[in-house]
Amino acid sequence: MTKKDEKKPEYYQDYLELEKLLKIQQLNSDKQGQHAHDEMLFIIIHQVYELWFKQILYELDSIINIFSINEINESNIGLCVSRLDRITEIQKILIDQVSVLETMTPMDFLDFREFLVPASGFQSKQFRLIENKLGLLQDQRYTYGNANYKSYLNKNDSNEVQTSEDADNLFVLMEKWLERTPFLNWGKTSFWKEYEAAINEMLSYDRSLIENNENYSDKERKIHLKHHQSTKGSFGVVIDEKKHKKMVENGEWRLSHQATQAALLILLYRDQPILYNPYKLLTKLVDVDELFTTWRHRHVLMVSRMIGKKIGTGGSTGTKYLNKTAEKHQIFKDIRELTTFLIPRSSLPTLPSKIQDDLGFYYHVRKKNGK
Amino acid sequence: MTKKDEKKPEYYQDYLELEKLLKIQQLNSDKQGQHAHDEMLFIIIHQVYELWFKQILYELDSIINIFSINEINESNIGLCVSRLDRITEIQKILIDQVSVLETMTPMDFLDFREFLVPASGFQSKQFRLIENKLGLLQDQRYTYGNANYKSYLNKNDSNEVQTSEDADNLFVLMEKWLERTPFLNWGKTSFWKEYEAAINEMLSYDRSLIENNENYSDKERKIHLKHHQSTKGSFGVVIDEKKHKKMVENGEWRLSHQATQAALLILLYRDQPILYNPYKLLTKLVDVDELFTTWRHRHVLMVSRMIGKKIGTGGSTGTKYLNKTAEKHQIFKDIRELTTFLIPRSSLPTLPSKIQDDLGFYYHVRKKNGK
Amino acid sequence: MTKKDEKKPEYYQDYLELEKLLKIQQLNSDKQGQHAHDEMLFIIIHQVYELWFKQILYELDSIINIFSINEINESNIGLCVSRLDRITEIQKILIDQVSVLETMTPMDFLDFREFLVPASGFQSKQFRLIENKLGLLQDQRYTYGNANYKSYLNKNDSNEVQTSEDADNLFVLMEKWLERTPFLNWGKTSFWKEYEAAINEMLSYDRSLIENNENYSDKERKIHLKHHQSTKGSFGVVIDEKKHKKMVENGEWRLSHQATQAALLILLYRDQPILYNPYKLLTKLVDVDELFTTWRHRHVLMVSRMIGKKIGTGGSTGTKYLNKTAEKHQIFKDIRELTTFLIPRSSLPTLPSKIQDDLGFYYHVRKKNGK
Amino acid sequence: MTKKDEKKPEYYQDYLELEKLLKIQQLNSDKQGQHAHDEMLFIIIHQVYELWFKQILYELDSIINIFSINEINESNIGLCVSRLDRITEIQKILIDQVSVLETMTPMDFLDFREFLVPASGFQSKQFRLIENKLGLLQDQRYTYGNANYKSYLNKNDSNEVQTSEDADNLFVLMEKWLERTPFLNWGKTSFWKEYEAAINEMLSYDRSLIENNENYSDKERKIHLKHHQSTKGSFGVVIDEKKHKKMVENGEWRLSHQATQAALLILLYRDQPILYNPYKLLTKLVDVDELFTTWRHRHVLMVSRMIGKKIGTGGSTGTKYLNKTAEKHQIFKDIRELTTFLIPRSSLPTLPSKIQDDLGFYYHVRKKNGK
Repeated sequence: MTKKDEKKPEYYQDYLELEKLLKIQQLNSDKQGQHAHDEMLFIIIHQVYELWFKQILYELDSIINIFSINEINESNIGLCVSRLDRITEIQKILIDQVSVLETMTPMDFLDFREFLVPASGFQSKQFRLIENKLGLLQDQRYTYGNANYKSYLNKNDSNEVQTSEDADNLFVLMEKWLERTPFLNWGKTSFWKEYEAAINEMLSYDRSLIENNENYSDKERKIHLKHHQSTKGSFGVVIDEKKHKKMVENGEWRLSHQATQAALLILLYRDQPILYNPYKLLTKLVDVDELFTTWRHRHVLMVSRMIGKKIGTGGSTGTKYLNKTAEKHQIFKDIRELTTFLIPRSSLPTLPSKIQDDLGFYYHVRKKNGK
Repeated sequence: MTKKDEKKPEYYQDYLELEKLLKIQQLNSDKQGQHAHDEMLFIIIHQVYELWFKQILYELDSIINIFSINEINESNIGLCVSRLDRITEIQKILIDQVSVLETMTPMDFLDFREFLVPASGFQSKQFRLIENKLGLLQDQRYTYGNANYKSYLNKNDSNEVQTSEDADNLFVLMEKWLERTPFLNWGKTSFWKEYEAAINEMLSYDRSLIENNENYSDKERKIHLKHHQSTKGSFGVVIDEKKHKKMVENGEWRLSHQATQAALLILLYRDQPILYNPYKLLTKLVDVDELFTTWRHRHVLMVSRMIGKKIGTGGSTGTKYLNKTAEKHQIFKDIRELTTFLIPRSSLPTLPSKIQDDLGFYYHVRKKNGK
Repeated sequence: MTKKDEKKPEYYQDYLELEKLLKIQQLNSDKQGQHAHDEMLFIIIHQVYELWFKQILYELDSIINIFSINEINESNIGLCVSRLDRITEIQKILIDQVSVLETMTPMDFLDFREFLVPASGFQSKQFRLIENKLGLLQDQRYTYGNANYKSYLNKNDSNEVQTSEDADNLFVLMEKWLERTPFLNWGKTSFWKEYEAAINEMLSYDRSLIENNENYSDKERKIHLKHHQSTKGSFGVVIDEKKHKKMVENGEWRLSHQATQAALLILLYRDQPILYNPYKLLTKLVDVDELFTTWRHRHVLMVSRMIGKKIGTGGSTGTKYLNKTAEKHQIFKDIRELTTFLIPRSSLPTLPSKIQDDLGFYYHVRKKNGK
Repeated sequence: MTKKDEKKPEYYQDYLELEKLLKIQQLNSDKQGQHAHDEMLFIIIHQVYELWFKQILYELDSIINIFSINEINESNIGLCVSRLDRITEIQKILIDQVSVLETMTPMDFLDFREFLVPASGFQSKQFRLIENKLGLLQDQRYTYGNANYKSYLNKNDSNEVQTSEDADNLFVLMEKWLERTPFLNWGKTSFWKEYEAAINEMLSYDRSLIENNENYSDKERKIHLKHHQSTKGSFGVVIDEKKHKKMVENGEWRLSHQATQAALLILLYRDQPILYNPYKLLTKLVDVDELFTTWRHRHVLMVSRMIGKKIGTGGSTGTKYLNKTAEKHQIFKDIRELTTFLIPRSSLPTLPSKIQDDLGFYYHVRKKNGK
């Protein structure tokens, strides 16, 4: 608002570098002298995808940056939530725009498909960077044909992707942040102990109901008791450090025990003002995961419709690959699965008043104290 | 599928020219040494818009090309419907992605808004081309500040836009195509006469009902008769050549009388197989209009929220401009308004058998004749 | 989880009362012996609309309830934001599902339209309740044919709607809540004074730039100075109590001066943790307004396509009515227009440290104090 | 339009039976004296789902009705396409509105979840009817806990569902319709033979390219030849009656050999005017399948987030059930997989002129013949 009059006026087409942007759509079918009308759409939609990937990476980098500092300012958590929110809005567009690609029919695709080989979405460096920066474990990757995913990239791209593998990712930084949460220690007791007690009370009450229900046949009672036993066992990952360790070793769980507890505390007590943004943050991370899963599913359906069971342009049986990654490439699934361990508000351990105060707003507390 | 092994393999990043694509996002705020995080989103979303505009123009050009030939092959009408369908799918994305821009708050925008002046969506050459190729009348344009819209473009862009003004546009070509429809002449009678008769019968019946309804007070009867009279008058644009001419002179109607009748015939008898695709075509054209209207409305809301009543970066009071164009820049509104003149299937004039045959499928007719 | 075994098992169809739900779709065209296939869709989609309206009213009532208490608990603001968020998600569905109705063509509609007269969406009691509970001013209502909107309802419905007119609505309750915000008084100074100073400094700097820019012709300089003067004037509604009063008298502004300032403070300092949820709340209210506006626009387009310029089943020229209401029935537009008065973060008055503390979290403050 | 003045005026609330509609939302949590705010949403959204299911069934029944007649009028194919199109628009809403349910958090759900047991979406009679009427094979059903899916329904509902199992379904009727297509017999030759020849030519050319490519190592050549062999084999289901029979026996294919060929012909020659609507029809059936698959996936994600790995209210591990059905409950997958067997337009066998004529429009043909 202040210095504008001094600058040379900006022209829209120059600001957006439209001259460059709008001449980099060269159809391979044209180069081969066999113009295929629909190849233009194919190029443009993939360029749009890559522009959005750039934006996602840009937001992701800024979030990683914020989380790389030990003492994260509260208001920065809100900022990260906003930026994750932007990422999810972009992901929704990534999903919706599959329907534009679906206006291309399989036969239209056949007109130029041969000219693409072996280029493939498989080779999108930016998408690999997104996966790594979110924190995908390399051994969780679904590998195609026993070849490392980087082998499909050229030297430069492969190096850049390698760097992102080695750097701190959002999963790891979020885990450290969770581990620093000061609210687990409740003085003489702890969140952990109180939660365990609440679970046990709830479970014994349930057990007595099953044992005393006269409508059950012996067989039915047995089945219900078995279910009950397995429910009890499932809480282990949160309350039993050994069980947690075992699950981590088996690759069934990734989040550290301390971080797991902190995440559960945030989910359970999110009505507390100070936990509202941390709760939103955890939720948004699960959203990001889910939306990529949905995008992959949508993509599978579209591809399988486009090429049937043919081999993908990159050599993969496209649909199988995408299905597997939709299933395996979920990074924040521990957070999602914590919903298993939520308990009704009425069974929640009461917060010690000191913790309650810490979790409230200063202003609010002061007012209550008549200041 | 056949020649692929002879070519040098195609690399995804090269095919999409990603190196060039991903380096043309230079933030003005960075150039000024005042990095504004959200300017990246602003640039990328506008580049995405322009890529989609290119695709829309590409499809539009191909449709105009098909319609430029006098004898349009029937199967090409289907092709045009598919391509218009693609355009509408893209338009839906244009609308949806406003929600990505809305993740930028007004204060985030203030951080870099001054660096953009006076660049403005106003200066999108491609959008002007779309408007002109669809067939926007130049005197229908809402002009901002009495200045011709081309005055905001640089010399080259202005010339290119001028060329599109002078060339045949889709509205004009569609009108000519409608005028060539051979189904209006029904031998001894005509669609026009039969339709007029059907309207008159329907209207006199309605009139007698009003006149004979004993529940009406005199005042109520008068009001109903007045309404009835005005309904009767409104059919004029289709059945009365003079009335049509007058409306054209007043700028209330644009489509020629012959084309108006042909369009109405298509809308009324679209259950006939041969009219199915022409009907779809007319419908899709109205869709394209509507989606741009919706996009402008959505855009108005977003902009007014972003900048309030401030002056737009291009100098316009942005929201007023967009509101006016949403209202005025409708190209196929005559087609839309033809729904006013539809009549129930039960009142439709029966098609003469010769016309009925012409409208059916050859195969079907042959079977009926026992061949 | 605890008492389930004692209850009689619940059957899905009974829980949802499906037997009743699924038999209340009686086609008028069937009653008249002229089955019109598409009337079923017409009934079902309107029933779906009314179910969603019920849900919106249910959430709205709960929010009004929370805001009716003088001392609103901070965590309840978060709860209201969540419930407004639910309302907006429902509104998006209301908008999207117009496309289901659009699968009905004008001619299909003509098959049963006459059987509906004069029933009309006009007569939706629930929608009137929503408008009143949000806080639509009765003299802001676009009246059709000089008749009060309640005259289209039957006695019972009219009474219920009247009650909602007289009760406290969300606009009024939100205004009172804003007026109670304690952060406007900054001790020796006030938010109001500091904001005015910041505006003035910003404006004089801009003025000097215009005056000293040697590239301007005299004429250009005059135009820029005129613009500058009008920008300056527009800030009046916030900083000048008299100007504010005048605008209220003219019906150009509705929110009280105190509430206007509080809302602006929340928008400007929303990065402060304690203002995050209030900021979200104001934003969500504008969202609700916008989505109803969008819904009306979408509806206008659909109706005008369905019936052309015919008279609506309720006797209104449907599209004109809907267009007018889309324009006039905006309740929280003052909040939206406050974006006009935002200033860049760099020009924001620094918060006095006492206010800063009040706005932070207790926990955070304690840590800073080394406790 | 004609008889309206004679009828008693219709009141909106009565027409839609709103009095009944809006009082069948009784919260179980209220009955138990433990009001859970979010149970209202749970009831309303499921009632909305059931209303939409009713509409889908209504359209499905009308399509089945049309297809039950041996000689289907061409214009009725267009009508079926429109009605399938309506079904898909409804399905999109079913998917979108999951996001309304997602505004309910897991802890909000826990407040009333126990009151629902064992009611479950599992017990939706209407959804079972949809599956059966589309043509789901009973042995394709994913059974939960070895119990027949009808065992979860009460007697009446179970009987109604049984009836739908026994009646003609859309898959079977579509298959018969395909088998009646007269275009497979090309006089001295047949579509089948010509297609086989085109495939063979294409494949031998590809083979020679592999064999003569000097850049291949022996190992690479072997791999490519193996791929080539397997591609060749995959065409069997269309061109080799024995192979087709075997695949049917193994449950890998369902569509009869005759119908498979007809479907492929329609897909390959859909540019022919008379095949345009049949092509649309096949495409829409695949759409319906896909959208239910997408809906189930979306649903899985939502449920797993809501309840984690807990047992569903109906006793199922909800997410596993939904995942399995998303995978297995695809009815028109043969049609989808036919894309595997498409070949480029340039390799398509030329239609014999007699067939070409049969596929064109009568009108068009006449003109060409100078009549």
